[in-house]
Amino acid sequence: MSNLRIDGDRLWDSIHETAVFGGTPDGGVKRLTLSQEDRKVREWFKSQCEQLGCRVSIDEVGNMFALRPGLDDNLAPIAIGSHLDTQPTGGKFDGILGVLAGLEIIRVLHDADYHTRHPLILVNWTNEEGARFAPAMLGSGVHAGVFDRSFADSRIDAEGVTFAQAIEAIGYRGPTPLGQTRFAAMFELHIEQGPVLEREAIEIGVVTGVQAMRWYDLVIVGREAHAGSTPMDMRQDALADAAQIILAAQDVARRHGGLATTGQITIAAPSRNVIPGHVTLSLDLRHERDGELDAMEREIASIIEDRCQSARATLAPIWKSPAVRFDASCLEAIKKGASAAGASTRNIVSGAGHDSVYVSRIAPTAMIFIPCLEGLSHNPAESASKKHCTLGAQTLLNAVLFHDQISADQGSS
Amino acid sequence: MSNLRIDGDRLWDSIHETAVFGGTPDGGVKRLTLSQEDRKVREWFKSQCEQLGCRVSIDEVGNMFALRPGLDDNLAPIAIGSHLDTQPTGGKFDGILGVLAGLEIIRVLHDADYHTRHPLILVNWTNEEGARFAPAMLGSGVHAGVFDRSFADSRIDAEGVTFAQAIEAIGYRGPTPLGQTRFAAMFELHIEQGPVLEREAIEIGVVTGVQAMRWYDLVIVGREAHAGSTPMDMRQDALADAAQIILAAQDVARRHGGLATTGQITIAAPSRNVIPGHVTLSLDLRHERDGELDAMEREIASIIEDRCQSARATLAPIWKSPAVRFDASCLEAIKKGASAAGASTRNIVSGAGHDSVYVSRIAPTAMIFIPCLEGLSHNPAESASKKHCTLGAQTLLNAVLFHDQISADQGSS
Repeated sequence: MSNLRIDGDRLWDSIHETAVFGGTPDGGVKRLTLSQEDRKVREWFKSQCEQLGCRVSIDEVGNMFALRPGLDDNLAPIAIGSHLDTQPTGGKFDGILGVLAGLEIIRVLHDADYHTRHPLILVNWTNEEGARFAPAMLGSGVHAGVFDRSFADSRIDAEGVTFAQAIEAIGYRGPTPLGQTRFAAMFELHIEQGPVLEREAIEIGVVTGVQAMRWYDLVIVGREAHAGSTPMDMRQDALADAAQIILAAQDVARRHGGLATTGQITIAAPSRNVIPGHVTLSLDLRHERDGELDAMEREIASIIEDRCQSARATLAPIWKSPAVRFDASCLEAIKKGASAAGASTRNIVSGAGHDSVYVSRIAPTAMIFIPCLEGLSHNPAESASKKHCTLGAQTLLNAVLFHDQISADQGSS
Repeated sequence: MSNLRIDGDRLWDSIHETAVFGGTPDGGVKRLTLSQEDRKVREWFKSQCEQLGCRVSIDEVGNMFALRPGLDDNLAPIAIGSHLDTQPTGGKFDGILGVLAGLEIIRVLHDADYHTRHPLILVNWTNEEGARFAPAMLGSGVHAGVFDRSFADSRIDAEGVTFAQAIEAIGYRGPTPLGQTRFAAMFELHIEQGPVLEREAIEIGVVTGVQAMRWYDLVIVGREAHAGSTPMDMRQDALADAAQIILAAQDVARRHGGLATTGQITIAAPSRNVIPGHVTLSLDLRHERDGELDAMEREIASIIEDRCQSARATLAPIWKSPAVRFDASCLEAIKKGASAAGASTRNIVSGAGHDSVYVSRIAPTAMIFIPCLEGLSHNPAESASKKHCTLGAQTLLNAVLFHDQISADQGSS
């Protein structure tokens, strides 16, 4: 390791300096991908990187790569980064912290005239949020070969504007071929977006992986009937079935140590005095292990079959993302980095998706979490302390430097 | 009794003859109150009654009274009737059967030149359905003094048309002062709108009363949080609380022999991967006895207080209607009438509101139910058999004649 120190005040100032691009009166940030606000923060970011001697390249979907040369330019670069776009009701930290902590690291190295063995590359991924163009993690997904350029270009926002039109409009269609930029490793710092670290007063989460996630639509077809004249034992109440299934799925999740959430429910023709005959609801299941998620899915399917009074209930899978286990050597670097920073740690599994999910398919990858206020994110009240941002960035710096030594010693390229 | 016989074919033909006024391609009827379709059926009804020697008067809210003189015109008339308006997705029987069975009775008496001791009055109440102008049972409510004329006139439909404008537009603002027409008794024949008689293969329901009904809005305020990063034990899931309460309320209803229904539920900002933080739902509670309904309400309120993980849950009463017990002598007449018609009977409590609820406040009243297909109503598929319609009308005729004797003997006026 070294004794290089993150300047917490400088990092904090940068976070607040960029928060004006799309800043909202309630203290939040609305900076949808490829918007004019996104263009402004991109230009600020490019200019900051170039002032530090980095060469900034932009690929065909707008991903930005700021390269700082290493001692051995035959080694593939170690990547740091995240995303600068936000949700419509976003905050100042989600994604932004990961990019600006990377910028702070480049500044520290620049000021100390410290040269890593690997080149370093600071990345701003396009459209992580998926709020303007679905799906989320689009730029990192294209980079990793999960999606192709024509898929990305064809995405359409709520106003009917395509991704292709939007990226041309802000001038961020770059010449760098997709996926050309190889990484020796990737480290991403992020707020937890959950309440665990704060509750346990832990400073750094060593993110060992990302939960498997599956989305389903459940349609329950019972029978509409008069609320006043249909005895309780003669009903096919689709909403009562939905209520049973929502609670049973949550029990299954608790027993397996996973998560189950219903965030949407709709009665087809709702009326105060009509027993619901047609209900649609969403089900989001998550678990660290795919096998446990299989078991959860089977149990819930069997409960739906056994317990429904309704004529028909159909559980349709609509999306799935397998569990991700981050790279052991990257995790080791993060643990050592946190320890050197004097931070308390615990292992944690990310419940949310991140750019690192796709990057992990093509390079050794791991993430660092810091606590955020009450687990809030995608909310103007999203907040993380200066102390935790500084500790997170210091851990990130230490991890990068540690990995730079180990990986170069092992001849990684 | 007499040996006067309902002509089931004639009744059936009239039901189908009137079903063309607002008839829909799917076999249903859309005849919103005070619409042009309603005007047509009113004119048909008036003309039919006048052909039978009745004098038709119309009151200030459009209620139609067809009077057939009795042997003793000092006696108050015995009323028969129901309503000719329908829901937007209505059928051929709901309300209509009660009016046309009354018309059939007048025809039978006319053909036989039979004269009751009391005058008879056949009523078509305005806006029973409440589908165009809320609330339901408006015409009978005004007649009974529950609402006043200015309240009725001020009701507004979805197009912004007032009740006053609508009634003037079809020329059915009559000169008869409200509530002037007194009744010695009122009998209403109706389809059950529930599945009990059909399930038990009973031909006639002797309706002993109408359930007490209470409507509530329940607002649950939990906390929105990320579905992927919030552990199950750290959630304030307003929808999970809603599911618990929906099911608990139904359990309470079962234990008390009442009914509980949630027909509406809304998540404030639904998103597939966000734990719901704000849920609103309706609760409809019914029981034959007000005291049991009090107990149900108390138990549910206490469950809401005990079980919610959410920060706040508020159960707000928005409407109530006390239990109605129909008149013993009218019920006795119906039982005798059904017996004379050779029909099987059981006592039944109406779960739905009817014009008879309000009329029972000002006159001895009771109702007769016949089975309907699968308990369906407010649906184009609403159906009742010719046999049951005939039996219902015969029971109604017998009950009226029986009550006419008894009541007149007792000097009722």
